[in-house]
Amino acid sequence: MTIVINELGQMSNKNPKTRLYVQTELKAGTVILVKNGQGHYLVNVMRINMGDYVSFFNGEQGEWIAEVTKVGKGKANVTVREKVADQIFESDLWYLFAPIKKARLDYMMQKATELGVNLIRPVKTERTNLDRLKFDKLQANAIEAAEQCGRMTVPEIGGMTSLSDLLSEWPEDRKLIFCDEAGDAVQMKDINELDAKWAVLIGPEGGFTDQERQMIRSHKNSVAVTLGPRILRADTAAVVALSLWHSFIGDWSNE
Amino acid sequence: MTIVINELGQMSNKNPKTRLYVQTELKAGTVILVKNGQGHYLVNVMRINMGDYVSFFNGEQGEWIAEVTKVGKGKANVTVREKVADQIFESDLWYLFAPIKKARLDYMMQKATELGVNLIRPVKTERTNLDRLKFDKLQANAIEAAEQCGRMTVPEIGGMTSLSDLLSEWPEDRKLIFCDEAGDAVQMKDINELDAKWAVLIGPEGGFTDQERQMIRSHKNSVAVTLGPRILRADTAAVVALSLWHSFIGDWSNE
Repeated sequence: MTIVINELGQMSNKNPKTRLYVQTELKAGTVILVKNGQGHYLVNVMRINMGDYVSFFNGEQGEWIAEVTKVGKGKANVTVREKVADQIFESDLWYLFAPIKKARLDYMMQKATELGVNLIRPVKTERTNLDRLKFDKLQANAIEAAEQCGRMTVPEIGGMTSLSDLLSEWPEDRKLIFCDEAGDAVQMKDINELDAKWAVLIGPEGGFTDQERQMIRSHKNSVAVTLGPRILRADTAAVVALSLWHSFIGDWSNE
Repeated sequence: MTIVINELGQMSNKNPKTRLYVQTELKAGTVILVKNGQGHYLVNVMRINMGDYVSFFNGEQGEWIAEVTKVGKGKANVTVREKVADQIFESDLWYLFAPIKKARLDYMMQKATELGVNLIRPVKTERTNLDRLKFDKLQANAIEAAEQCGRMTVPEIGGMTSLSDLLSEWPEDRKLIFCDEAGDAVQMKDINELDAKWAVLIGPEGGFTDQERQMIRSHKNSVAVTLGPRILRADTAAVVALSLWHSFIGDWSNE
């Protein structure tokens, strides 16, 4: 038997074939029945067998190795064995976005999750082109992305809000990064308030209206940030802004 | 008639409805026959009329406003009127990538173009999962992205090369950013050689093999850079790496 270093950098002789998010208390000996979508994935896609290992996380109790102890039709019993890593919480960063076309929306759930945000919330603007969102689908996308990117939490998907409600109910202790092209916008690296909580707001494909821009810029917690000389699509701008935030302010900046 | 500031920040009383890349010398008075894909787009999608304006760029002579002087079936004559901005060249940055699934590939052409690279080149690795690429399609994607993001050049699409050929023919004066998860990888912001030419290399979905990693890391021009604690997909990693490069080294760093 080979001793392997698992993805979490800890020693384990049990090499998990995949990682699953569960809403169950995790402790040694607990038997978890994995069914529905996750069951299908384990049994039919990953083709797991008795004795194979998977790892579980529930967003609160770290990462646990578990052993497949029974395989059924599209479902499996998996018995929790040992904790392999303590819980890590993500940065307190919100990603607020004006919903965009379906394909790009799935993509953005995935990217925002990979980039460690803890709240994803759709914001209705004048040029938002999707009225109804399938929240279950958004949450499922975020869970799948969290499983794959190795993070131990799943971002919360917030309810749709209007831009004016968002701003009028804005928390006192959180700064709002607004990606703007105007000449007085600062660079992310010039932001000095490292101890605030943060949010990144990305507009719809057609941009905010002038009135919306003024409403955002005049909010006392907003910081207008530039993302360079070229015009970025909304989904590119989101990845760029979240990356720069991490690099200058968030969890990459003090590694 | 309203005087507008066009996208390039120059005064013009002619508001272009769209931007097109052409491989034609641009000077006042030249009549350009816009046909095929661009013609279809102008006539059937944008529904341009006689007297409407479009802007042209050819990658060398800046940006020009032109007037629609004849509209046919899926084609139009457009007469070049005046130069509205001088040529701007992009940073000397290469984006080298192991080709990934079709949808993500289109996406990456678009993102790399928006993020100002001047050469996009596919690299074959052991885990590359596409053997043949449609270069015309890649180039068309890059042109469309350049038209939309406002840049005045179109990135070159290089021929497919193997990783070993790429490294053995590597130019003396260009540094290679290799995004690696190993502990000694530095952060982009800690790179000090601002005057070198640069390239960013992104591996396939399954990562490079150990042998490939060693081959890249032992190359004297390579710099191993970390992209944070989470596992990023290849397409996310590309956008993150190119953004950080711009912010620390490229054309956003000295705005």
